[in-house]
Amino acid sequence: MQKEQIQILETSIIRLLRRGANRQLLNIIKKTHMADLSIVFENLTPLNQEKLFNLLENPEDIGLLFSHLPENTFVELVKIVDFDKLVTVFNNMPSDDAAELLGCLDEELSDKILSKMQKEESYNVEQIMSYDEDTAGSLMVKDYVALAEDVKAKEVIEALQNKYLDVEMPFYIYVIDNYGKLVGVSSLRQLVVESPDKPLKLFMATDIVSVKPYTDREVVARLVSRYDYLAIPVVDDDNRIIGIVTVDDVIDILHETATEDMLKMAGVGENYVETQTIIKGTRIRMPWLLASCCGGIANSFVIGGFESTLAKFTGLVAFIPIIMGMGGNIGTQSATIMVRGIATGQVNIRDFTKMLTKELGVGFILGMVYGTLIGSVAKFRFMTESSSWALASSVSISIVAAMSVAALVGTTVPLVFERLNIDPAVATGPFVTTFMDLSSVYCYFTISKILLGF
Amino acid sequence: MQKEQIQILETSIIRLLRRGANRQLLNIIKKTHMADLSIVFENLTPLNQEKLFNLLENPEDIGLLFSHLPENTFVELVKIVDFDKLVTVFNNMPSDDAAELLGCLDEELSDKILSKMQKEESYNVEQIMSYDEDTAGSLMVKDYVALAEDVKAKEVIEALQNKYLDVEMPFYIYVIDNYGKLVGVSSLRQLVVESPDKPLKLFMATDIVSVKPYTDREVVARLVSRYDYLAIPVVDDDNRIIGIVTVDDVIDILHETATEDMLKMAGVGENYVETQTIIKGTRIRMPWLLASCCGGIANSFVIGGFESTLAKFTGLVAFIPIIMGMGGNIGTQSATIMVRGIATGQVNIRDFTKMLTKELGVGFILGMVYGTLIGSVAKFRFMTESSSWALASSVSISIVAAMSVAALVGTTVPLVFERLNIDPAVATGPFVTTFMDLSSVYCYFTISKILLGF
Repeated sequence: MQKEQIQILETSIIRLLRRGANRQLLNIIKKTHMADLSIVFENLTPLNQEKLFNLLENPEDIGLLFSHLPENTFVELVKIVDFDKLVTVFNNMPSDDAAELLGCLDEELSDKILSKMQKEESYNVEQIMSYDEDTAGSLMVKDYVALAEDVKAKEVIEALQNKYLDVEMPFYIYVIDNYGKLVGVSSLRQLVVESPDKPLKLFMATDIVSVKPYTDREVVARLVSRYDYLAIPVVDDDNRIIGIVTVDDVIDILHETATEDMLKMAGVGENYVETQTIIKGTRIRMPWLLASCCGGIANSFVIGGFESTLAKFTGLVAFIPIIMGMGGNIGTQSATIMVRGIATGQVNIRDFTKMLTKELGVGFILGMVYGTLIGSVAKFRFMTESSSWALASSVSISIVAAMSVAALVGTTVPLVFERLNIDPAVATGPFVTTFMDLSSVYCYFTISKILLGF
Repeated sequence: MQKEQIQILETSIIRLLRRGANRQLLNIIKKTHMADLSIVFENLTPLNQEKLFNLLENPEDIGLLFSHLPENTFVELVKIVDFDKLVTVFNNMPSDDAAELLGCLDEELSDKILSKMQKEESYNVEQIMSYDEDTAGSLMVKDYVALAEDVKAKEVIEALQNKYLDVEMPFYIYVIDNYGKLVGVSSLRQLVVESPDKPLKLFMATDIVSVKPYTDREVVARLVSRYDYLAIPVVDDDNRIIGIVTVDDVIDILHETATEDMLKMAGVGENYVETQTIIKGTRIRMPWLLASCCGGIANSFVIGGFESTLAKFTGLVAFIPIIMGMGGNIGTQSATIMVRGIATGQVNIRDFTKMLTKELGVGFILGMVYGTLIGSVAKFRFMTESSSWALASSVSISIVAAMSVAALVGTTVPLVFERLNIDPAVATGPFVTTFMDLSSVYCYFTISKILLGF
């Protein structure tokens, strides 16, 4: 559904809720995808949310709704849901979704739910919950098809009709040996083409890409997108398959990591959520501004050191913001290009010298262009002063220096961070911009002091 | 393959190329996914690239290699490839990939290739090329299965074994009526479960989500990720199916749009590519810095207006950078939170007042905290001056004002841009940061002037 259609859906649901027209509401629910209903749901008043929720009967629908709701809406909603209903819902949910949602609830409640769930289900969910949040293990589902090498094509199809009836999307048929080790893979597409009596081992592919449960989720995403897979198997250290990560989870990873990177680049911290309260938001953002604060205080001392120069040439002050601004902007450009290049794999450390030369070149040329331009403005402003040429040259040269240094720093820091295994996205945040401010101002006053002959 | 494995692969390929060990090379090529080989390929010298390329025989492999290479490597490579070989490769490529690659070549060459391709293939490719780059039409493939309502389950499977043998991933079976209109959809998974004699119309799903060829690709990505689809059908205005967009393309869209957004946020322009030359890079980045330059010049005049205040209290200068820095950083935080919230659908315009209140609250509280802290530093620095309290208070109050205003501007601008259908990602770039610099400095001097009694 597009935005407008969801808007219409919302209006009708609110009207029907007011009229208590439950039959029509049930009809709408039946026809609406839970992903759409969740958007409407979020915008309802708590009372309307409760009314609408009570109309939902199918535990699978409820599970889908849960996993599409934002975390805090879900946590609020759970409070009004009957406990037994909750257990049924979690029993019918894919184990990775169940694990994620239970992780949002307080421990007491989630333990209580787990203890009432079916043994096999709760075992799977607990296994997934035991892995770190950013790993393949925390994303995997247990719904996969794994059969022995000797199973024939027609028997695979029979298995799909019976034993694996609840595996929703069996894109791939994994082939295992007697020890449960992953030895091959085939696809549903291939199955319908092969002659019915051919055993899997004769047509399976044996070059399998797999990940470990502790593999970082960004690596999983990279593999799936590079090879255009629909799912990737997760194997333990003995190469026994223990789950799969499907492409829809990879899409979620891409969304989340892009968001995290942007927030880190802006210096907000990766876990910032828009729906937080003022107090929480303040607490998360406070430490990131500390870098900027300390740098600024340092800067005030740098400027203090040049007070005698300033007292004589007050006009110099007017160009502090532009020098800082030009340096800051080009530094952010270079750093962002690097950070994103590293994230998408288009830049790697071996290109270091090449990238550095290029960015330094860009910084220098842009510095010359804008330095000349801004220098002319300065010459015009200082027209009446005796040392107008020296003042204007100070501004010009400082712009060239500040922009070249900023391009250099913006390029180097992300690559160095990557090398040190620190997330390069942090590099464009307050830390680096503050450093650039400091160096721009320092360049400016040092150059002015020299040219004005102190 | 992981990074380390690719590194090993590269080393062996270079060694074998030097020795001219073609048999071993062919063996490696056969076992390596073209996505991996493309990474090695990029790092080879032109001579080695040519040698390795000449060993590739299979046109499908070559097509895959082409689509995994960066644009400029591909364009260079094409120059050394035999024309007839090129035509064969393009004949065997998925039409969306072929359209994208031909779009990179100069028109003369791409027309020549198209004219030699098989009629049906070149027709498909030209149709795709006729759509705008950012639309569903430019991404769609023609490889889909569309059958009539009366076709029975077993006949569908037969069709997959014969007529549709080269449809690589027939996740969905689209059902069309006599006029070719899309009326339903079924899946391969469902097919193997249904009884063989049941016709499609009895088990197909009829609530189909489809897009038009001119639908924006970001909308396509949003639909596919919201509903966890593996493909989405593209229909013309008469609801006749003309292609499908598959999930692997959606993953590419997500990568590209995230990159574009980040580049826009940093003020680089969405089309920046790391591999550009210094001159091209300079040209693309130059205009974005103009905003910063103009703002800075304006700022120099603002400061010029307060020259008499400055001449008396030179110490004020020392706190210009910190006030600009704190305002700039919190503004970037707010703007980034908004921009990403809008992109992921977590923030919408109806929440405007709520978001504004919250961000203003965060800005004000953080302003109070850092204002007090930095004010104390200022009091300490100005200890010896008679008006030290007034100077310190100016700094404190300016920090509160600058941070509150920046949070306000950072929140408002992206939402206003979204409303005006301008990409909100532009809002955190140089335009807005420059505006914030200007307002911070203006606040500072106005407040100082009042408190110092001018």
